[in-house]
Amino acid sequence: MSPTLRTELQQAPSIFEGFLARFFQENAERYAYGELFEPLYLDMTEFVARRGKRIRPMLFLGSYRIFGGERLFDDSSLLRSALSLELLHAFILIHDDVIDQSERRRGLPTFHKLVEERLGKLDGAARVGGNVAVVVGDILFAMALDTLRSTDFPRELRDAALSHFLRYISDTGAGEVYDILLGTRDIARVEEADITRMYTLKTTRYTFEAPLVLGALLAGANAELLQELAELIEPVGLAFQIQNDLIEYHQFKGVDRLRQTDILEGKKTLLLRVAYDHLDDLDRSFLQLCLSTRASNDASISKIEQLIDKSGAVGLLTQRMEGLFQKAEAALKASSFTPEQGDGLREAFSSVRQQTQHTGTQ
Amino acid sequence: MSPTLRTELQQAPSIFEGFLARFFQENAERYAYGELFEPLYLDMTEFVARRGKRIRPMLFLGSYRIFGGERLFDDSSLLRSALSLELLHAFILIHDDVIDQSERRRGLPTFHKLVEERLGKLDGAARVGGNVAVVVGDILFAMALDTLRSTDFPRELRDAALSHFLRYISDTGAGEVYDILLGTRDIARVEEADITRMYTLKTTRYTFEAPLVLGALLAGANAELLQELAELIEPVGLAFQIQNDLIEYHQFKGVDRLRQTDILEGKKTLLLRVAYDHLDDLDRSFLQLCLSTRASNDASISKIEQLIDKSGAVGLLTQRMEGLFQKAEAALKASSFTPEQGDGLREAFSSVRQQTQHTGTQ
Repeated sequence: MSPTLRTELQQAPSIFEGFLARFFQENAERYAYGELFEPLYLDMTEFVARRGKRIRPMLFLGSYRIFGGERLFDDSSLLRSALSLELLHAFILIHDDVIDQSERRRGLPTFHKLVEERLGKLDGAARVGGNVAVVVGDILFAMALDTLRSTDFPRELRDAALSHFLRYISDTGAGEVYDILLGTRDIARVEEADITRMYTLKTTRYTFEAPLVLGALLAGANAELLQELAELIEPVGLAFQIQNDLIEYHQFKGVDRLRQTDILEGKKTLLLRVAYDHLDDLDRSFLQLCLSTRASNDASISKIEQLIDKSGAVGLLTQRMEGLFQKAEAALKASSFTPEQGDGLREAFSSVRQQTQHTGTQ
Repeated sequence: MSPTLRTELQQAPSIFEGFLARFFQENAERYAYGELFEPLYLDMTEFVARRGKRIRPMLFLGSYRIFGGERLFDDSSLLRSALSLELLHAFILIHDDVIDQSERRRGLPTFHKLVEERLGKLDGAARVGGNVAVVVGDILFAMALDTLRSTDFPRELRDAALSHFLRYISDTGAGEVYDILLGTRDIARVEEADITRMYTLKTTRYTFEAPLVLGALLAGANAELLQELAELIEPVGLAFQIQNDLIEYHQFKGVDRLRQTDILEGKKTLLLRVAYDHLDDLDRSFLQLCLSTRASNDASISKIEQLIDKSGAVGLLTQRMEGLFQKAEAALKASSFTPEQGDGLREAFSSVRQQTQHTGTQ
C-alpha cells in the first residue's frame, strides 16, 4: 500500500463520521413527519452514529481506491455510497435485534428497547417497541437505497450498483431465514452445509462482498474482475464467521455471559455442529438435551461448555479458519489482480482481522 | 374514456395475472436459496397471486395511458412497473399483519400464520412465524425495487420513478409508525389532524399517489403536472380512508365480527375520534373505558357500537367523505389537465369506488 493511500485511509474514519452526522442533520426536513415521528428520527440518528467499527464503509473506500477510483475520499457521492452500506447495516441490525429479542447493541439499548423504554409502563410496551423498530428498519432500508441512488456516478454504474445492492439484501434476508429456521431444529438435523450457507448469505454478502464489489464497480472494474473478487471473498467471509463463533465461545466462557442467550435460543453455530460431530453418542444426547429450550439453566450452560471443550471443536475450527485465510491468500496469488491490488486486498483483510479479533464483525 | 381504452382496461387484469404468475416462475432460480427457502418462495408466490383487487397496478396502467404513454399493456417493462406496486403492497401487508397479529388476509392465513402452521407444534412457532414474515417482507421490498429498476424505460425516467417509489415507502413507514403510536394513546389525546396525517401517509401515498404519479411520470408528464396530480389525490385518498372506516364499522356491527379486534387493539380511527367529539362528558368517559384494553369483552363492544350510533359520527363522516370527493371534482375542473385527462381520472376514481365499496382499499 502506498503511503498516500495509508494516510488517506487513516483519515477516512473521521471524514466519514463527520459526513454521517451532517447527513442526518441535512435530511431532517425530508423526514419531518411531525411531532410523533421526531424522537424516532433522533433515535435513528443516534443509532447509526453509535461508534461501530465501520467495517463496511471503510472496505468500500479501500476497494474503490485499490481498483483505481480517482475521487477523493471527501467526495460527497463516494461518501454517500459508503454511508448507504452503513445504513443497510443499521436496518439489518434493527430487524435482527427484534427477531432475536436482543437488549443491547454497541453498548446501548437496541432500537426496540429505546422505543419501549420511552413508552414507560404502558401495557404491551415491548410489543410496540418491536413493531416500531420493524418499521423504522424499513425506513432505513429505503434511506440506504435512496442514498446510493442519489450519487452522481454515471447512471449506468449507479444502476449496476443498485442492482448488486438489492441482490445482497435478498441474499442477507435468505440467510436470516436460514438462521431462524435452523434455530428451530435439533442440532442433529442441521447440516454443516446449511450453517456455512447461512453464514455466507447472512453476513459475508453484505459485510464483505457488498463493500468490496461496489467499491471496485464504482471505480470502473469490469464484470470478470468483480466475479473474481466475489469468489475470493467467500472463504474470507467464512473465516471471519468462524472467528465470530470462537469469540462468542470465549465470551460465553468468560465473564460476559450475556451471549449465553444466543446458544440457549437455539442458534445453530458451526462450533456447535462440529462439537456434536466429534462427540460420542452419549455426549451427543447430553448436548441435545442441554440445547433444548426446556433445559435452559446454569447447569446446562456449564455442561455445554464442557462438551464443546471435550469435543476439540475449538481447535478444529481454529485450524479451519486459518485454512480459509490461506485459501484466500492462494486465490489472491493465482488471481489476475495486479500485485498492488493483491497487496491492497491483503491489507484490507488483515486490518479487518485486527479490528474484529475481540468483538467480531458486528 | 375512449372505447379503445375501456377495452384495454378490461383486458388488463387478466394480462396482469398471467404476467405475475410467469414472473414468479421465471425468477425461481434467482431465489433458489436451497431446500429451506423453497417452501417460502412458494408461499410468497401464493400470497402475491391471491386474488386481490389489484387497485394499484390497474391505477398505474390507467394513469400511464391517460397521460399519453404509448406502450401497449402487454409491454413487459410496463407490466414490471405495475407489478412492483403489487409487490410493494404485499411487503406492506405482510409487515402490517405481523404488527397487528392479524390471522387472515384475502380469505386465507396471513403470511406469518402460513409459516407458523407449517411448523406444527413447535415451541414458539408463533414467534418464528412472525420473524420469518418480517424477513420475507424485506425480501419482497427488495424484489419490488429490483422489478421497477430493471425496466427498459429511459434511465432518467427510471431513476425518477425509483426516487418517488422510495419516498412513498418511507412515507408509508411513517404512517405506520403513527398508527402504532396513536394506538397507545387514549382517544382524548389523539388529534384529528394526527389521524388524517396517518391515513394520508400510511395509505394514500402508496395506494393512490404512487400508481397515478408513477404512471404519469413514465408516460412523460412533467414535474408541474405530477405535482398537481399529487395534490388532487390527497382528498380522494382521505375520502377512501373514511370509506374504509365506515365499511369496518358496518362489518363490526354485522355478522363479520372479526374486525372487532381492530378497535379493541386500540386503533385510532377517524370514526372513533369524531364520535368522541360529539358525545357528552359522561359518554366520553364510557367510550374511553370501553376502548381500554382492560375492558375487552362483548359488553364493551356493544357499548362502543351504541356510543358511535348515538354520536352521529357515521352521518357526519359520510358527509365529509362526499365533501372530499366533491372537493377533488372541483380541483379536477380547475386543474390544467385536458378534459380527456380529467375524464380519465374521474373514471379511475369511480371505478375504485365501485370496487371498494364493500371491502375497502386493502
